[in-house]
Amino acid sequence: MSKIKPPMIILNFKNYSETIGKKGLELAKIAEAVAKEKEAEIIVCPQTADIRLISSNVEIPVFAQHVDSDEPGSHTGNNLMETLLESGAKGSLVNHSEHRLKLADIDFCVTRAKELNLDHIVCTNNISTSKAAAVFSPNFIAVEPPELIGGDISVTTADPDIVSGSVEAVKDIDKDVKVLCGAGVKNGMDVAKSIELGAEGVLLASGIVKAKDKESVIRDLASGL
Amino acid sequence: MSKIKPPMIILNFKNYSETIGKKGLELAKIAEAVAKEKEAEIIVCPQTADIRLISSNVEIPVFAQHVDSDEPGSHTGNNLMETLLESGAKGSLVNHSEHRLKLADIDFCVTRAKELNLDHIVCTNNISTSKAAAVFSPNFIAVEPPELIGGDISVTTADPDIVSGSVEAVKDIDKDVKVLCGAGVKNGMDVAKSIELGAEGVLLASGIVKAKDKESVIRDLASGL
Amino acid sequence: MSKIKPPMIILNFKNYSETIGKKGLELAKIAEAVAKEKEAEIIVCPQTADIRLISSNVEIPVFAQHVDSDEPGSHTGNNLMETLLESGAKGSLVNHSEHRLKLADIDFCVTRAKELNLDHIVCTNNISTSKAAAVFSPNFIAVEPPELIGGDISVTTADPDIVSGSVEAVKDIDKDVKVLCGAGVKNGMDVAKSIELGAEGVLLASGIVKAKDKESVIRDLASGL
Amino acid sequence: MSKIKPPMIILNFKNYSETIGKKGLELAKIAEAVAKEKEAEIIVCPQTADIRLISSNVEIPVFAQHVDSDEPGSHTGNNLMETLLESGAKGSLVNHSEHRLKLADIDFCVTRAKELNLDHIVCTNNISTSKAAAVFSPNFIAVEPPELIGGDISVTTADPDIVSGSVEAVKDIDKDVKVLCGAGVKNGMDVAKSIELGAEGVLLASGIVKAKDKESVIRDLASGL
Repeated sequence: MSKIKPPMIILNFKNYSETIGKKGLELAKIAEAVAKEKEAEIIVCPQTADIRLISSNVEIPVFAQHVDSDEPGSHTGNNLMETLLESGAKGSLVNHSEHRLKLADIDFCVTRAKELNLDHIVCTNNISTSKAAAVFSPNFIAVEPPELIGGDISVTTADPDIVSGSVEAVKDIDKDVKVLCGAGVKNGMDVAKSIELGAEGVLLASGIVKAKDKESVIRDLASGL
Repeated sequence: MSKIKPPMIILNFKNYSETIGKKGLELAKIAEAVAKEKEAEIIVCPQTADIRLISSNVEIPVFAQHVDSDEPGSHTGNNLMETLLESGAKGSLVNHSEHRLKLADIDFCVTRAKELNLDHIVCTNNISTSKAAAVFSPNFIAVEPPELIGGDISVTTADPDIVSGSVEAVKDIDKDVKVLCGAGVKNGMDVAKSIELGAEGVLLASGIVKAKDKESVIRDLASGL
Repeated sequence: MSKIKPPMIILNFKNYSETIGKKGLELAKIAEAVAKEKEAEIIVCPQTADIRLISSNVEIPVFAQHVDSDEPGSHTGNNLMETLLESGAKGSLVNHSEHRLKLADIDFCVTRAKELNLDHIVCTNNISTSKAAAVFSPNFIAVEPPELIGGDISVTTADPDIVSGSVEAVKDIDKDVKVLCGAGVKNGMDVAKSIELGAEGVLLASGIVKAKDKESVIRDLASGL
Repeated sequence: MSKIKPPMIILNFKNYSETIGKKGLELAKIAEAVAKEKEAEIIVCPQTADIRLISSNVEIPVFAQHVDSDEPGSHTGNNLMETLLESGAKGSLVNHSEHRLKLADIDFCVTRAKELNLDHIVCTNNISTSKAAAVFSPNFIAVEPPELIGGDISVTTADPDIVSGSVEAVKDIDKDVKVLCGAGVKNGMDVAKSIELGAEGVLLASGIVKAKDKESVIRDLASGL
């Protein structure tokens, strides 16, 4: 069973230079401090090579950014679930918009992640793909409308229906699947609005990573939970 | 400048269950012991999530199995060169037969790896792709005839010309590029024969990882250098 | 609205040498003759470059083997729906096991195919991916258990539950989506059994293309409808 | 042996709506008329499904936009060389910037295209990938600097060295390989300048396809040969 307690904030480090190695650890420590202070569930997703460094130095959950649809074997350069777990990851993003998977591979990843007790967040791009992903009964689905990724527009202003519509469509398939808002979240108000619309968390990246005062931004976001 | 001193043995851990986490560290320590005893250049390529664990516990060079053609930025789940270096990797395989790249991406990876001083071994499948890869002047090219990968046939019996032919074709383009034998190497005699044919090292995986007595196999291989 | 009248037999020509150009037309004409004689719905899927030749010379429906998730524009070498339609195709396979698509691209293809009135058969590999694809409400879903593709084992012997289970799972999402049996069908008895299990047709390739007497095989298959 | 007589103009129809079916044939007929009038070598690259329609109605050479690295067999939805030839294509683009191939697949395509006597133009993105592709001794290499694709800037103004540099690098590997300028060509002056810089032809798309008066543009381009 997942030990993650929604509502939550997931921070994707991507490959930004601000998150490599020690800088990534520093950012994770800021997230940990806010998580403790606010009693908020905050999860960090560092680059694969940094998972062990960070998971062994913070107490908040660490997720991978990507996992491949492999069993152990003759595969070179892929991210194996067993290895992610052993390095301290508690979960992984799956099918992120920058690392899309084929349908059969999403099915494989979710099925295997459940067997191995690895939390998993399947990323989707609209209501109908959210609903399709819900068929696999993953822990979480994060809907990322492509037009809002990396931009300055708030999802709750631009397209609130994609959040409420995804929640409704997903729950219609499997009421235990939790929906996250995966783009267009910039501040605590966006977080609060997302949750009001039925989301149980948010996934974001540049809004924190590129911020001058990362701590203030995380604290503001956490205030919206 | 590369600090690798050929001739060398490169051990690709792949995603085999025998190489995950502590087991991978144990295997790397065996390789390190033989390397010291025989004064041999032995390089290990663990899974990305294990690079830091292994690089911080052994003194032999650690390489990644794969690197993506990215600069730092908005990329999720990829292997960034800067992060590999910071996690202790000295180099990476590029274009392994289980993780092929497009032509323009090989060019990007080699160019950027040279800028960042990351050693790199471009894998190829025959004489003509070895020659094409040589145009980019990588540190190393490892030729892996597809019919010999993972099998029990020795390259030096089955197809010695692919080694000598690749060496000749590569040196014809750039005499500083070193050629490795990337498949069909099982024992010290194969290593010795490969070097006799002009190779400056060998790349192997299952022959060691799946061996009952891994130390004996590595010691036997090293005796062929 | 689709003009296809199930139950039906869909014959995928793949890239077999027996189906190129005039040979493919000849095979399509055999299928047409049996279709008329038996009043059976038989659809042929030639290679893209042969669609026009065949669609302008037979009266049975011609489908493409693959379609890309593109609108008209700056895309080179892709199969555009508008062009398939103009060349005489009435439909297309989507996400065939030899040409898999990402989740978001299947969604795009089905949505756009419906807008353009192009019939479409989404291929899947098991019950859960069949159910996920049903969320997009395509015309047809063809379930192809990977272990039966191209083999000699009959799906109705080896794994009848995958047919009945897919039918049930798909109808549970959208009762208008028709399910086809996409592998392990060799003769009329297999066709009859598939239909008994709830399928509204079958998709096959080598069983016909590689047969010495193609006409007998098609006639036998049609007898099972 | 190739029957193409450089210098030449290659017109890639891409998937633009202006080139589908009859509109594509009309455009090919305009190209044919100018080719005859000016005694110019003009080649058209329609979408795959339109190759037969166009090749059977014009006398100028018709090339495919893409070819896959397959022998005949169990491949669904790919472009097979044998089928392209039978449908009237005389050649194909290979590795276009919108349809990139892995290194080993470019090698396969060039080798097989030579065996089957299919002309082939390998697209590349800079001087070093042009040189690498030259190792395979293809008929033609078209260099497309990414920053000039689809734009309004002339390659001969922005980056003349990429043309002369590619010609020099390619000829250094194999003097029989002809180099084309694959981007940044808008008018007859650009064509003339490209040839002055050592190119033996140009490859273009939107400049013609999107022009109001397509005939004038083609005639102007041909005047630069």
